Amino acid sequence: MGERVEEHLKAHGVTLHLGASVERLRGDDAGRVEAVVCEDGDLAVDAAMVGIGLRPNSDLVADAVDLGETGAIAVDDYGRTSADGVYAAGDCAEIDHVVTGEPTWNTLGLPANRAGRAIGQTVAGDPEPIGTVADTSVVKAFDLECGRAGVTDLDVARDAGFDPVSETITAGSRSGYYPGSAETTVTLVADRDTGRLLGGTIVGADRAAVRIDTVATALASELTVAEVERLDLGYAPPFSPVWDPILTAAKVLRGSL
Amino acid sequence: MGERVEEHLKAHGVTLHLGASVERLRGDDAGRVEAVVCEDGDLAVDAAMVGIGLRPNSDLVADAVDLGETGAIAVDDYGRTSADGVYAAGDCAEIDHVVTGEPTWNTLGLPANRAGRAIGQTVAGDPEPIGTVADTSVVKAFDLECGRAGVTDLDVARDAGFDPVSETITAGSRSGYYPGSAETTVTLVADRDTGRLLGGTIVGADRAAVRIDTVATALASELTVAEVERLDLGYAPPFSPVWDPILTAAKVLRGSL
Repeated sequence: MGERVEEHLKAHGVTLHLGASVERLRGDDAGRVEAVVCEDGDLAVDAAMVGIGLRPNSDLVADAVDLGETGAIAVDDYGRTSADGVYAAGDCAEIDHVVTGEPTWNTLGLPANRAGRAIGQTVAGDPEPIGTVADTSVVKAFDLECGRAGVTDLDVARDAGFDPVSETITAGSRSGYYPGSAETTVTLVADRDTGRLLGGTIVGADRAAVRIDTVATALASELTVAEVERLDLGYAPPFSPVWDPILTAAKVLRGSL
Repeated sequence: MGERVEEHLKAHGVTLHLGASVERLRGDDAGRVEAVVCEDGDLAVDAAMVGIGLRPNSDLVADAVDLGETGAIAVDDYGRTSADGVYAAGDCAEIDHVVTGEPTWNTLGLPANRAGRAIGQTVAGDPEPIGTVADTSVVKAFDLECGRAGVTDLDVARDAGFDPVSETITAGSRSGYYPGSAETTVTLVADRDTGRLLGGTIVGADRAAVRIDTVATALASELTVAEVERLDLGYAPPFSPVWDPILTAAKVLRGSL
């Protein structure tokens, strides 16, 4: 996925300096940033955005409730913390990962929104689990759509006790003869012993991102790659080849298992 | 879904004569069609397309293999017919429906292609089931995308032993503030006793059709509506509201259950 995004950004005139350590930001006399000083030289800029990762802001409550290994607030399936009558949801709290079963820290909108609603319902007397996350996320780079769900890093999969196998395919997003087909690249990861799907990524310019929902749904159901290959996904020439790229990826991955 | 399609066709200048019995096609002296003669009068036309449904063309083999109640060739999970060593796949054969569990007749490309491949593999000594169908289908009417999967007709659901409940919602396809959001209408049907999702339809102009794959995948896993509501589907403003329209429909339907 990263390679496709890199190509696409370059084709749109974006210059990338990957893996180049940033030494400092240099400002002009008015205190306005004018350059990023890095290994690759002084890069003149109009603005700088700094992305250095995220950390749960849980210090405030660290004395009141137990934190998990992620540094976020530990909660049970209903969002209950270690303190009686205190619940936590969203970016401050952990939530279980649907593939590993382990508490994870997810900072995305839907799980936070859903957990908050579930806790509201639970507090009101109708217990509702906060659910799990597949760490599903979708993003757009110009007109290139990217999606990911589940465990796609092989080291993470091994740490979780799986023996991961991965395959990547590229297929058209529509029937070959139908205008508008775009190369769609799908990577799927599965466990060799059980055949269980562990995660996947997708990238392409034609309705690629939304297709990751198929992977997210399959993960929630603990489907095997063979079961994914047999899904009755929609086919019509404007929307998909006969075998959706995700089905093709499942077929190829199953061969490798 | 039909109402949305009807509106959309009319907005594009298509005149519909629904439920009007056709008496005959009238031709000119050269034998070329010039009018459809129906209850609503004589409709001048340049061409006529006749859609009168489909029927499996199984007469050829009716003496050799057992036919099912649908009129297509009866097969087992591996495509085996009643005749030893004879397999059948595709438009001539039945295949089990994932929701009802009953043999059904599906004339779409993916199930035929998949069943043919599975039989090839089985015959070659590595038995592979032909799978099931959700009768998933997607279609385009100008720029309006439609999808359906599973059992969406309440009478069909009742005949299959379910107590169906249905809800329809309309939601944006993207975050409200993001350009390009399109009204997306989702209908979901579930069984009142078990909460099991039975089927769904979706219609909208922005990536609607592909979203039906979430329903198809949920059906293959026999998910309940509560489980669908808790799916970690992808969210980013260009692709979806925080709650994907399918999740919103699941939430509303769950309320009705």
